[in-house]
Amino acid sequence: MLVIMEPEATEAQVRRLEDRIREMGYEPHVMEWPNQKAISVTGNQGSGDRVYLEGMQGVFKVIPITRPYKLASREVHPENSIIQLGEARFGDGNVVMIAGPCAVESEEQTLRIAEEVQKRGGQVLRGGAYKPRTSPYSFQGLGEKGLEILAKAREKTGLPFVTEALDSGSVDVVANYADMIQIGTRNMQNFILLKAVGRVGKPVLLKRGMSATMTETLMSAEYLLSNGSREVVICERGIRTFANHARNTLDISIIPALKQESHLPVIIDPSHSSGQHYSVIPHALAGIGAGADGLIVDVHDRPEEALCDGPQALLPEEFSQLMYIARGVCAAMGKTIGFPQVR
Amino acid sequence: MLVIMEPEATEAQVRRLEDRIREMGYEPHVMEWPNQKAISVTGNQGSGDRVYLEGMQGVFKVIPITRPYKLASREVHPENSIIQLGEARFGDGNVVMIAGPCAVESEEQTLRIAEEVQKRGGQVLRGGAYKPRTSPYSFQGLGEKGLEILAKAREKTGLPFVTEALDSGSVDVVANYADMIQIGTRNMQNFILLKAVGRVGKPVLLKRGMSATMTETLMSAEYLLSNGSREVVICERGIRTFANHARNTLDISIIPALKQESHLPVIIDPSHSSGQHYSVIPHALAGIGAGADGLIVDVHDRPEEALCDGPQALLPEEFSQLMYIARGVCAAMGKTIGFPQVR
Amino acid sequence: MLVIMEPEATEAQVRRLEDRIREMGYEPHVMEWPNQKAISVTGNQGSGDRVYLEGMQGVFKVIPITRPYKLASREVHPENSIIQLGEARFGDGNVVMIAGPCAVESEEQTLRIAEEVQKRGGQVLRGGAYKPRTSPYSFQGLGEKGLEILAKAREKTGLPFVTEALDSGSVDVVANYADMIQIGTRNMQNFILLKAVGRVGKPVLLKRGMSATMTETLMSAEYLLSNGSREVVICERGIRTFANHARNTLDISIIPALKQESHLPVIIDPSHSSGQHYSVIPHALAGIGAGADGLIVDVHDRPEEALCDGPQALLPEEFSQLMYIARGVCAAMGKTIGFPQVR
Amino acid sequence: MLVIMEPEATEAQVRRLEDRIREMGYEPHVMEWPNQKAISVTGNQGSGDRVYLEGMQGVFKVIPITRPYKLASREVHPENSIIQLGEARFGDGNVVMIAGPCAVESEEQTLRIAEEVQKRGGQVLRGGAYKPRTSPYSFQGLGEKGLEILAKAREKTGLPFVTEALDSGSVDVVANYADMIQIGTRNMQNFILLKAVGRVGKPVLLKRGMSATMTETLMSAEYLLSNGSREVVICERGIRTFANHARNTLDISIIPALKQESHLPVIIDPSHSSGQHYSVIPHALAGIGAGADGLIVDVHDRPEEALCDGPQALLPEEFSQLMYIARGVCAAMGKTIGFPQVR
Repeated sequence: MLVIMEPEATEAQVRRLEDRIREMGYEPHVMEWPNQKAISVTGNQGSGDRVYLEGMQGVFKVIPITRPYKLASREVHPENSIIQLGEARFGDGNVVMIAGPCAVESEEQTLRIAEEVQKRGGQVLRGGAYKPRTSPYSFQGLGEKGLEILAKAREKTGLPFVTEALDSGSVDVVANYADMIQIGTRNMQNFILLKAVGRVGKPVLLKRGMSATMTETLMSAEYLLSNGSREVVICERGIRTFANHARNTLDISIIPALKQESHLPVIIDPSHSSGQHYSVIPHALAGIGAGADGLIVDVHDRPEEALCDGPQALLPEEFSQLMYIARGVCAAMGKTIGFPQVR
Repeated sequence: MLVIMEPEATEAQVRRLEDRIREMGYEPHVMEWPNQKAISVTGNQGSGDRVYLEGMQGVFKVIPITRPYKLASREVHPENSIIQLGEARFGDGNVVMIAGPCAVESEEQTLRIAEEVQKRGGQVLRGGAYKPRTSPYSFQGLGEKGLEILAKAREKTGLPFVTEALDSGSVDVVANYADMIQIGTRNMQNFILLKAVGRVGKPVLLKRGMSATMTETLMSAEYLLSNGSREVVICERGIRTFANHARNTLDISIIPALKQESHLPVIIDPSHSSGQHYSVIPHALAGIGAGADGLIVDVHDRPEEALCDGPQALLPEEFSQLMYIARGVCAAMGKTIGFPQVR
Repeated sequence: MLVIMEPEATEAQVRRLEDRIREMGYEPHVMEWPNQKAISVTGNQGSGDRVYLEGMQGVFKVIPITRPYKLASREVHPENSIIQLGEARFGDGNVVMIAGPCAVESEEQTLRIAEEVQKRGGQVLRGGAYKPRTSPYSFQGLGEKGLEILAKAREKTGLPFVTEALDSGSVDVVANYADMIQIGTRNMQNFILLKAVGRVGKPVLLKRGMSATMTETLMSAEYLLSNGSREVVICERGIRTFANHARNTLDISIIPALKQESHLPVIIDPSHSSGQHYSVIPHALAGIGAGADGLIVDVHDRPEEALCDGPQALLPEEFSQLMYIARGVCAAMGKTIGFPQVR
Repeated sequence: MLVIMEPEATEAQVRRLEDRIREMGYEPHVMEWPNQKAISVTGNQGSGDRVYLEGMQGVFKVIPITRPYKLASREVHPENSIIQLGEARFGDGNVVMIAGPCAVESEEQTLRIAEEVQKRGGQVLRGGAYKPRTSPYSFQGLGEKGLEILAKAREKTGLPFVTEALDSGSVDVVANYADMIQIGTRNMQNFILLKAVGRVGKPVLLKRGMSATMTETLMSAEYLLSNGSREVVICERGIRTFANHARNTLDISIIPALKQESHLPVIIDPSHSSGQHYSVIPHALAGIGAGADGLIVDVHDRPEEALCDGPQALLPEEFSQLMYIARGVCAAMGKTIGFPQVR
């Protein structure tokens, strides 16, 4: 890190800082140029050190000059990571389509929707067996029974599936069934869960927290990668802001920014950002325009009966409409989306 | 408005509210249904009344049941407004391309860039003669001299131009030259300026404030429309959030939301949202995907010499690249962008 | 809930809604008044239903008319809850002082600081044995060894202690040692953890999530209360906003708002909101002024050696200074703070 | 500024940057230390240069090492500024009390309330003659007639008054009457207005914009100071965040932060932050606790008749209650508030 001194800092203040830095176990290197002094600090520093030094007399500010994440950064992995899931490839320049019901409600419902998704071009199935719900009085998911249903849907349609693990205690059972494990928004900084999911080594879909910065999101990916994951896909699903005309504010600006910083694929969830089915397609196309490597979309054929988030689900025919327009948009960008052969 | 009572509200509290509502000059209508009472209030109420009643004993909450904007709403104007500016038509289902330098720096620079814009498909020229700058020590624009230069550029290229008015005092001089008057982000709630611009009756480009809700944005449009404007285009240019990986957070979710509420065209400014030229094209395509009626883009052929916002300007060849991809994206959505005949 | 119709809604639209509401299993009650119709819906509805109905033709908006939380609300518990922890009483009108190191680093460090806290008027000891850290490369806490140290500090000083449980897997071990279990900010919506902590029945300190609304905060309290907790204290510790001059934005406005809605005590954490020791006292006094029932403050006698958040720790003598001023402020408000008898 | 290179930046990239910096008219100074290079740039740079260089190959980040504001900073003015208005002194360590109606509605109303304010300890009168209103259909103020009424109230009570100027066109007339000119929240970055108000040289009350950073707020103060103002008081009145339980989120953290950076006095407006009279006193005391140099409070004796913001006005007896408690709180902090002699 670099300690920038105030223009009027005294020699004594500089010397006091050098001593303190050595006491902390690091090496100070004083640099001077017209009207300014700075101290470069080498050795591996924690973020607390930075703030601590910033509080000292004569210091203007302290600047970290390395990224806090390593494995998630392009520094150590300059090429895009490509993550294969069934026939879908995240990060190869095309757009992967993940779709399915918000929650697994019954075998019949899930198989029915999975088939709709598959025949309309979806490549990966989504569906929640364990549901994190704001209210303790809402439907909390079918649990392992839901995982069994998803496995049947995979068998029937050939689609791999992604589903959420809520807690370190259920990671193993989810990993037994799922092709990809989702970390939900509210759990992005549940570090115990991240470690547990990292250890099982399966592909992970990491949803950005509702108020997570890009750096924090990459630090959570770093938890996964440093604990054993090799395949992490990041998902933008809307952030919390003052704006109240949509369920969340879809932050498409994180897509090009993440692409610069990291080799990990990035997808978007237009259903949870919009919250209303009429705006899912605009959000989805915006994500593609911004360069997303994939979409994850709620689809339900009877949204008025859905036990979770029905209002934001696309009907199967709306999903086809999305696929149709998105195909053209992708083509204009030199990409494909979903399974090209179907319908 | 509707006054919803607490379930345990007493008869006396209901009667007290009825009296108060009558004292305020409105008419109360008590309604009852199982376990609940409410009072509908008719008569034209201010927003203060609502909050005032909400503070009274026995009241659970008070709900406005009408929109505060009229002229800007689809209630009074169900069809999309179409606003013609030269050959460009905002709101007709296609995408208008506005481009040019952030600031007018000199005649030579402006004419040079205007020609680039015109020959690469831009339909409207942008350029600031009066610049609102965060620092009093930054370049503040050429003023009326800048307007003269823009008029010359219009003469040379045939492109109409949009430029900002900063203050009621300079509205008339801006209106003398400009085809469309821009209200900047920081002035969205400068109500004196809105009234002055409304009175001159020219087309207006109203930029959403950095932390304006959709309702506030439409209320500012209402100021313009109720003071004489007939042609108002709204521009989303990024909002202020905790996210720090882009200059602003482009809120594409306001596009479908505004389309539901209002008949006014909506465009986006990907240059001011991204702040870095490498992410302008992703932001621009995201805006098109979300359904924007147009784009306003900074273009500069020598961004390193620009007196304002050089880093976010597209080079002319990058602008062509945007036009090229955007054309395909628009085609996939059943739209066109910019002048179709050129390059 | 109440379904407010658009002024121009047709009879057919109203009838279609009535049918749909009955299909959903609820009872519709149509109400009319001049120029407006609404439908009151009785029966227990989920939040999805509301959004679903809002998407239907002719509907202006849908308004929930009951609170989603029950046990946390003043409706079912009009009096303030008073929660006793050792000699401290949260919610009795006075201000409880919780203090101690951010992390338990060693037995020696913890005992040393605990004694400082005790002798300077602190009533409850804080200290993290399991630490949630943004970086996988930071100190993660001493685990159960840390709990043993805290228990020794309790024995030595007589102070009860609060410490964080990170995961459902470690709730039992934390509950074995701790007097009060903390749910951290990043875990406020870790619902599995909330349920597990609820079940052990110990007093809980629930920290508000960084971007949680008041309603969401109360819903998390509701998870605890509906799973067995009887004693929940809410803690405001700063929210995430665009403001970058403090570590977080201390939202003191939630204190009077929570006091209106809920019977649960509310405390504030000025150390995590300010992030810099020089502003901890201003944040703390602001919290008291706003009506907080307590404070939780980082204290460290050697902040430059702290393994976690040293820069925001008060020195013991600064802690005394805070106690001194806070005592006067509390007295002016008719309250006391901390142990009155000491220093 | 400092240009920090990527660890893997090449010699050629460093040389290319040096050339570019020279072309921009500045002087580069290359510095090296283990595994890192940086270039210090001297000469007066604009903020655009920084972002521009940040976009170049091999650059990790670019860091400004000077503050963009001068006159507002403690660098040039290390002592607190003390601003005298009548008998009130902002910044002398005590707390100034400004109070009065939100809007001047009539002579009778204003005189009545002014007397209440004066006799209960207020030192400065507030009242809006020109009102910025979100809706064009709301009461817009009495204009110059309102200023005359305020002058009468001053004559009668001896209290100086502060009132808002909305536009450069009305600055002179406001300055003719007022003792202190208020710049409203929505006008904090109306730079034309700032210049005009700066030029008249009267004391200014600058309200922080709803989404203004601390730096932007100080830059607006810099506009005033560099155009002629010598006496500027900053006012925090709540920022816009996701939180919806208060009208705005009172950001008390800016008080200690501003005190570090700037010599200007800072006051808070608890009425506009809370929006509801029941929470005005908690907000006010929080501001005092955080170190504010003053308060500006809405007082109205008939809030249900108020033409603007009635719900947030304190009744005269509530104002006395605030004064009473605040006096004790101030005493505990070694300060006084309001006129000490009265009641």
